[in-house]
Amino acid sequence: MRIGELARHTGVPAPTIKYYTREGLLPPGERTSPNQVRYAGSHVRRLKLIRAMLEVGGMSVATVRDVLAQVDAPGRTVHGMLGVAQSAVSRSATERGTEEERRQAEREAAELVRRHGWDVKPENPGWPALVQIIVTYRDLDRGDLLALLDEYAAAAGRLAQVELATVADVPTVDGMVEGVVLGTVLGDAAMSAMRRIAQESASSRFARPRTQSV
Amino acid sequence: MRIGELARHTGVPAPTIKYYTREGLLPPGERTSPNQVRYAGSHVRRLKLIRAMLEVGGMSVATVRDVLAQVDAPGRTVHGMLGVAQSAVSRSATERGTEEERRQAEREAAELVRRHGWDVKPENPGWPALVQIIVTYRDLDRGDLLALLDEYAAAAGRLAQVELATVADVPTVDGMVEGVVLGTVLGDAAMSAMRRIAQESASSRFARPRTQSV
Repeated sequence: MRIGELARHTGVPAPTIKYYTREGLLPPGERTSPNQVRYAGSHVRRLKLIRAMLEVGGMSVATVRDVLAQVDAPGRTVHGMLGVAQSAVSRSATERGTEEERRQAEREAAELVRRHGWDVKPENPGWPALVQIIVTYRDLDRGDLLALLDEYAAAAGRLAQVELATVADVPTVDGMVEGVVLGTVLGDAAMSAMRRIAQESASSRFARPRTQSV
Repeated sequence: MRIGELARHTGVPAPTIKYYTREGLLPPGERTSPNQVRYAGSHVRRLKLIRAMLEVGGMSVATVRDVLAQVDAPGRTVHGMLGVAQSAVSRSATERGTEEERRQAEREAAELVRRHGWDVKPENPGWPALVQIIVTYRDLDRGDLLALLDEYAAAAGRLAQVELATVADVPTVDGMVEGVVLGTVLGDAAMSAMRRIAQESASSRFARPRTQSV
């Protein structure tokens, strides 16, 4: 198809398609004559994936390019893609508290991970985020909220099993790799959305039999 | 205590404390003489909460001010605070797809919420996020990832029960309100961190018995 048709199929304007190609997010189409380029079905799919990463994932063009370079790398593995996608969507965690408070929180985080039987590398972006949260809850003396971390861990552990089984069921490696990227970029957003809805519902039930002051 | 002591207790420099007071995040201390202001223990706690919202929640100074104004409002309720905190941490969702695709996704979202027996207002910021995600998965023909939404919903429902019970256990309304704010601001970050760790662990187990190509 020509660029106008690709634009209609995806809702992405032609100048934006050209911009993504220049920036290395989208492979160039096949030049069939000096002023005509032909695009394939794979371009439609890639454009949809790019828009999902930018609009739903809130990622930058540079980050999308880096992730897609790994998606297209010959030696890619599903496990490797998970690490790439996780790093791409993780905000870097500010170091909080004193060195001693951080060291204590690191020990607590490691114990929690051990309790749940997890096997995880020190580079996982979840570590600094978890340490930051433990330091903050300790700083504010909120042992009650700290105790919720085991609940989050149990839920995350169950979900990870189902998520990985879903990806493993996909018949093609291309589909698996795309599933890992989408699941990582959109999965957190999906879980947050569900949490907002479930919390409001639970809260309205808690609030009802009580007085207005609570 | 004087401002120097408040700064030492919280790790927040004195000029920053003055800035938060000017911006309306921190109540002013009590002026005991023309050039001396006295701060109380409540200032220590408030400063720690401000830092948690800014540094861990990634919120803007203006958003923190708005949330704290509600925390201090005389008519505040725990249920009302949950709505305020949820809106403060939610990114606005880009509208995706055609109007017909969005309408179909809205129906699917409403069915999902009904399946889980939830009672939730149309203003909940989870709705547009959920619709956006359904449109994206449909657009990319990922029925397999769409099916995971029920798993997220079940997990979110269980967690919401435990979270609300934790808040309801706090003996003071001040403590409950703070718990709702912290739980909302830090809860999503905690869940994301756990998901990163649990997914890497599950993925390394899936990867092990298989060949290098997957």
